[in-house]
Amino acid sequence: MQKKPYISMPVIRRLPRYYRFLRHLDKRGVTRISSKELSEKMGFTASQVRQDFNCFGGYGQQGYGYGVHQLCEEIGSILGVDRAHKCILIGAGNLGKAIATHISYNFAGFDLIGIFDNSEQVVGQQIADLRVLPAAGIRRFCSENAPLMAILCVPDSAVKSVVELLYDIGIKSYWNFSHYDIALRYPDTIVENVHLNDSMMTLCYRVTENEKSS
Amino acid sequence: MQKKPYISMPVIRRLPRYYRFLRHLDKRGVTRISSKELSEKMGFTASQVRQDFNCFGGYGQQGYGYGVHQLCEEIGSILGVDRAHKCILIGAGNLGKAIATHISYNFAGFDLIGIFDNSEQVVGQQIADLRVLPAAGIRRFCSENAPLMAILCVPDSAVKSVVELLYDIGIKSYWNFSHYDIALRYPDTIVENVHLNDSMMTLCYRVTENEKSS
Repeated sequence: MQKKPYISMPVIRRLPRYYRFLRHLDKRGVTRISSKELSEKMGFTASQVRQDFNCFGGYGQQGYGYGVHQLCEEIGSILGVDRAHKCILIGAGNLGKAIATHISYNFAGFDLIGIFDNSEQVVGQQIADLRVLPAAGIRRFCSENAPLMAILCVPDSAVKSVVELLYDIGIKSYWNFSHYDIALRYPDTIVENVHLNDSMMTLCYRVTENEKSS
Repeated sequence: MQKKPYISMPVIRRLPRYYRFLRHLDKRGVTRISSKELSEKMGFTASQVRQDFNCFGGYGQQGYGYGVHQLCEEIGSILGVDRAHKCILIGAGNLGKAIATHISYNFAGFDLIGIFDNSEQVVGQQIADLRVLPAAGIRRFCSENAPLMAILCVPDSAVKSVVELLYDIGIKSYWNFSHYDIALRYPDTIVENVHLNDSMMTLCYRVTENEKSS
């Protein structure tokens, strides 16, 4: 299959959902699915599904639908979930522990090779087969192991100096759970933000509005 | 100030960021800020900022900027962060613990009144001043305490039956960390999804693409 050079960001953001869903079908032994069925189960329109899949080369056959396994593999490969990019995690509180455990056992796209914290109570703890290392050792560890991405689960008060250090070491990709706007400060970075607080406040707004109107 | 009846979802999703930022300024004793300064610090355009604030009645004065404290209070009130809606959390693993702790100590918009889990190892543990209760007691607890919102930190395999129960009890608002599409199944619910996996896969894609092109 020929790979198209450009897939737009909205399509990319839908790919993980397709991937998840198709993998589920694949595991259950479903071999083919039509765009109509897929769209109904996922809450998109059928034409949206066809349009999305066309972006990276199609796979559908009129009247036969999509081959589930092949499509799943292809989307997985586009997403790069089979690459095992080396990454480190900074901040091993509850959130850091949850993320570390999840990545180590459920996701092949990143290979978690180091977990760091600056609290004496946390350093030395075992999380997902890794021992938490002291934050003071980040620079040396990175120069020896060259991770590509860092997961930031540190408090807002610490994140600025942590990113300064990591960027200086050469890490340019971040999964950021803090509120620090990395991409605004360092435009050449790749950043995915998870702003739990913003999501919670948005929910709070919607619940409040709903109460007012009911 | 007159409140406009409708604020669009994109504006609402930006409000938490404004709120966070303005509260930070307010705490530091900053009393006024211009749309230009705000926009530079937040990475929006000044006209975007003015447009957003106009949606709920303005506050800016030509040449004087915005009153930080007043604007912060107003946005907080629109978001409903001062309402303390009662909520429960299901699933007290690492993620559940992180969320429970965060909500209890950092967010006034929701009042966490119950934490539930079905694992014997977890039930009875103390998280953020609450003792984890057995999942079997959810129905009774809800009929006595009438929470408005549920936070779902349960595994994907358990979430469908948990939502069935909660919806049946009358809970219509969810902060959902699982992949189950609640709103597709129950269109009259208010749902904020946090799809950590999708965010991670999107990052994986961007890192992969970046490697290919460099």
